[in-house]
Amino acid sequence: MDFLPLPVTEVTQWAGQTDVLVAGFGGAGACAAIEAADSGADVMIFDAASGAGGSTALSSAELYLGGGTSIQQATGYHDTVEATYGYLMASNGPQADPEKTRAYAEGGADHLAWLESLGVAFKPTEYPHRAMMALTDDCLLYTGSEKAWPYCDEFAPAPRGHNLKVEGDNGGPLLMRLLEAAVRQRGVTVALESRVLRLIVDDTQGPLRVVGLVVRQDGEAQCYRANRGVVLCLGGFVMNADMLAHYAPRLQKATIPIGNPNDTGAGIAMAEAVGGRLINMDEGFVSLPFYPPASLTFGILVNGEGKRFINEDVYHGRAGTLILDQPWPVYFIVSVEDYADYETVSYLGAPIAGTGETLEELCAELDLPAGALARTVEAYNADAAAAIDADLHKQADWLKPLKAPLVALDCTPGHGAFFPYFTLGGLDTTVAGAVLSMSGEPIPGLFAAGRTACGVPRRGDGYASGSSVGDATFSGRRAGRAAAMGGSAP
Amino acid sequence: MDFLPLPVTEVTQWAGQTDVLVAGFGGAGACAAIEAADSGADVMIFDAASGAGGSTALSSAELYLGGGTSIQQATGYHDTVEATYGYLMASNGPQADPEKTRAYAEGGADHLAWLESLGVAFKPTEYPHRAMMALTDDCLLYTGSEKAWPYCDEFAPAPRGHNLKVEGDNGGPLLMRLLEAAVRQRGVTVALESRVLRLIVDDTQGPLRVVGLVVRQDGEAQCYRANRGVVLCLGGFVMNADMLAHYAPRLQKATIPIGNPNDTGAGIAMAEAVGGRLINMDEGFVSLPFYPPASLTFGILVNGEGKRFINEDVYHGRAGTLILDQPWPVYFIVSVEDYADYETVSYLGAPIAGTGETLEELCAELDLPAGALARTVEAYNADAAAAIDADLHKQADWLKPLKAPLVALDCTPGHGAFFPYFTLGGLDTTVAGAVLSMSGEPIPGLFAAGRTACGVPRRGDGYASGSSVGDATFSGRRAGRAAAMGGSAP
Repeated sequence: MDFLPLPVTEVTQWAGQTDVLVAGFGGAGACAAIEAADSGADVMIFDAASGAGGSTALSSAELYLGGGTSIQQATGYHDTVEATYGYLMASNGPQADPEKTRAYAEGGADHLAWLESLGVAFKPTEYPHRAMMALTDDCLLYTGSEKAWPYCDEFAPAPRGHNLKVEGDNGGPLLMRLLEAAVRQRGVTVALESRVLRLIVDDTQGPLRVVGLVVRQDGEAQCYRANRGVVLCLGGFVMNADMLAHYAPRLQKATIPIGNPNDTGAGIAMAEAVGGRLINMDEGFVSLPFYPPASLTFGILVNGEGKRFINEDVYHGRAGTLILDQPWPVYFIVSVEDYADYETVSYLGAPIAGTGETLEELCAELDLPAGALARTVEAYNADAAAAIDADLHKQADWLKPLKAPLVALDCTPGHGAFFPYFTLGGLDTTVAGAVLSMSGEPIPGLFAAGRTACGVPRRGDGYASGSSVGDATFSGRRAGRAAAMGGSAP
Repeated sequence: MDFLPLPVTEVTQWAGQTDVLVAGFGGAGACAAIEAADSGADVMIFDAASGAGGSTALSSAELYLGGGTSIQQATGYHDTVEATYGYLMASNGPQADPEKTRAYAEGGADHLAWLESLGVAFKPTEYPHRAMMALTDDCLLYTGSEKAWPYCDEFAPAPRGHNLKVEGDNGGPLLMRLLEAAVRQRGVTVALESRVLRLIVDDTQGPLRVVGLVVRQDGEAQCYRANRGVVLCLGGFVMNADMLAHYAPRLQKATIPIGNPNDTGAGIAMAEAVGGRLINMDEGFVSLPFYPPASLTFGILVNGEGKRFINEDVYHGRAGTLILDQPWPVYFIVSVEDYADYETVSYLGAPIAGTGETLEELCAELDLPAGALARTVEAYNADAAAAIDADLHKQADWLKPLKAPLVALDCTPGHGAFFPYFTLGGLDTTVAGAVLSMSGEPIPGLFAAGRTACGVPRRGDGYASGSSVGDATFSGRRAGRAAAMGGSAP
C-alpha cells in the first residue's frame, strides 16, 4: 500500500471542510471528537467500518485508572498518584514515558468522572477475585501485577481496573454506544464506510503542514480539508502480517492477533510518510490467560527444562510474554483439587498434556528432561510448605504444595492454548497528542491517539488490563483538544 | 537537525556529478566504493572526518566469517554453510533475516578471499584461547557463543573470528589503510571534511528517486549528482543520545557508547525522511568484557538476588546484555587462584566489591540477601564437582568448584566496569542493499550498508565479535554493486 501524502496543490475538489478531522471511530477517535467539539471546533469523524466501535468495542473496556478515583475511594482504597505513577513507570521499563505517565496518573480520577458525565456508569463496588475481568457489574479489580513481586514491595498495591456497570463481558459495546451517542449529540459529522487513505499536506506556506485527508467513499477518493488539525486514531498494526514481521517478529511467536480487521497500521504508515517517528515498534501485549479459575494460581508454570520461570501470581500477560523467550514446551502443572472448574470457566483452551495419580506418573507423560520436573516440584513444595517462594517470590497467599493427583496443561504456543497479542508500538507523540518527527519537532496539523500512537503502556511483561482502553480514551481526549486549538494546546 | 530531502528542482548548481555517491568512508563505504568502481561506475566518496576510517578503524576489525574459509580449512576446521547459517539464525533470534544470513553464510569464504586480493593478510593459524581478541598475529578464534549452551548442542561449533595478520589490537587501522588504498587505486574521488547533510530527490519524472547529496564543504552546502545511485554508509546512531532515548532506551543502561563521533544516525534519518523503513531499532551490542583472563570463566556471575543467571562460558556480549535485565547489583565471584593476571590483562575495570578468606567473609562484604550467595555457591560447587551444570549448562571445561580465598568484582552498570554498547537497528534493506520503504518497495536510487542498515547481527544476546565489520564490509560490497547497476543488481 502506498501511504505517501497528497500535496494540496493536487487537490482539485474538496468534498468537505471543517475544523478537525478525526480518522477512526474507536475509543480514541470518539473521545478526540467529543473533546474537539467541546473545545468549539466543528468536527468530522471517519471510519472504514459500517459502525462505530473499533477495537474498543471488541474489548472488555476495563479502564486502568488510579491515583484515587471515586470508586477507589468508595471501596476503601487509598491509592495515590505516586503509587500509580511508580507502578506504571516500573512496569513499563526503560521505555516508559515519564511525562505521559505522570499526566495519566494525575488525571485518572478526572478521567473517570468525565466518562461518568457522558453516562458511563460504574458501580462503587469491588470485584475481589483474581480474574481476567469482572463478569458481574462490580467495578474495581486488580488487573495487573500490583500485588506480585517485584512490584508489591515497591509500590503500595491498589486495584485500578475499572469495569463498567454491566453484567458479562459487555463493557466494550456499552462504552462505545455511550461514546457514540456523545459524539452525535455534539453535532459531529459521522462518516462510516469511509476509509482514510492518505494525508493531504501543504508545504507552499512554509514548513509542511497536514491539512486534510483523502477518504474512500462509495469507491471514490474524496478530499476533506481540516482547518485546524487531523487526528489519527486508526488503531495499531496487529492485523498487518508484513509490519509484524518487520517490526515485531517476536510477537509472532504468540498465536492470535486480537483487534479489529482495520488494525493494519495505516495511521502509523501515513504519519511515517510525512516524517512521523515510530517508536517501541517491537513491543506488544501477549497473554496466557491461565486464570480463571483463580485456583490455578496454586499451580506452577515450567519450561522445556522443567524449571519454573515466573511467580505465577503475576498478571497473565506477564507470564505470557515471558513464555515467548523460554525453551519450549511449556506446561502448567496443578493439583487436580485446584483444577476446579477449569473446563467451564477458563479462556485458556490449553490441551491436557498429561495426568498422574503420582508425580512420577505425570512426569512420564511429559516431554521434559528426566528428573527435572520432580526436582522442581520437590523444591517448590518445600518452599510452599514454608510459605516462602525463595526462588521466584510468589506471594504466600498462592503457595500450597502440589499434591497428587496432578494434571499438566500444554501451554506451548501453537499447541492449542489461547495466546492472544496486539501491538504497543506506534507514533511518538507529545503528551498533548502532537505527532513528532525524528528531530523531535511536532508535525504541524497532525495528532494521534490510541494504539496509532505510543502511549502509556509499553511492554508486554508489564502490561495491565485496562491500559489500552484507558490510554486510548485519555490520549484521544487530549489529541482532540490539541487539534481543536490548532496545535497550541499544552 | 532537519534531514528533509532537497527537491532537485531547488538545486541551482551542481558541484559535481558522477555515477555513484558513497556517503561515509568507513569499512562499509570503502567496500561499496571499491565494488562500484569495479562494476564500471565512476565513484565519489565523502566523509565528515579528516581521514578515512569510520568506526571500523577504531575496531579490532575481526571478521566473523564461516562456511569453510581458507583459514578454517588450513587450521583443520570443517565448518559448513549450514552450521554457520544455523548458528547465526538461532543467535539472532526471531528478528534474524534469513535471506541476508544465507547470503552471508554462503559468501564467507569468498569474502575473505576478496579481502586477501586487496592485500589484507591472514595467517593460517589459530589463536586457541578464550579472549576478546587475538593480540598476536594469529588469525582464527572463537568470538561468539558457539561452544556454549544452547548453541553447542545444535550447531557444530567452529571458530569464525578472523583476525588480521598484525600484532596487538591494530586490525582496524590496518584494514582501513588497505581498503583506502584500494579505493584510491581505483580512481575514486575522495572528499574528506565533507559532511553529508541531505539527500536530493527527484519526483518530477515519476516516483520519487534519490539523485544526489547535499554535502557541506568549507562551510558551504554543495550539491552532488548521482547518475546511478547513492549509498549511505554513515554508521549507526550510538552517538545520538536523543535517538537512543527514543529508539533504544534499554541500551542506555550500559555506560559507554562506542563508535566514532559521527555515528549520529544521520544516514538513518535522511533515509527515513524519504520513507525508509527503520527496523530493530531497540537492539544493540552490549558487552561485559569479563575475559581475559580466560580463567575468570571459572567464576560465576550473580545478580542482586545472589543467583546465577547465565552460563559464564558464553560470549561476553551475551552476559553483558543479560545483565541489563537483572536485578542489580551484579557481582563476578571468582577464586583468587583464577583471578590470575586480571589486573594487568583485563579490559573490565570492575572495582573489587569484596574479598574473603572464607565464603562467609566475602558474603558479609556484598550487598545481597542473607544466605543467598552461600546457597548459590554451594549448589554451583556441587554441580561443578560433578562436572554437570544442571542449572545453566556451563560446559564441563569451565566447571571447577569455587575455593576460598575468593574475590568479588562489582559488575553493576554504572559502578565502574566497562560496559560498552552500540546500535544494531537501522534501515531495512534488500540483500543487495536497496533501502526499502514501509510498503516493502525499494526506494529508487537509494542504498545503504554497515550499521546505517540493519544487517546480519540483530541481537545483543546473540552477538559475536567480528559480526559488524564482517557485515559492514560484506553489505558494503553488495550495496556498491547494486548502486553501480542503478538498482538492477540482484
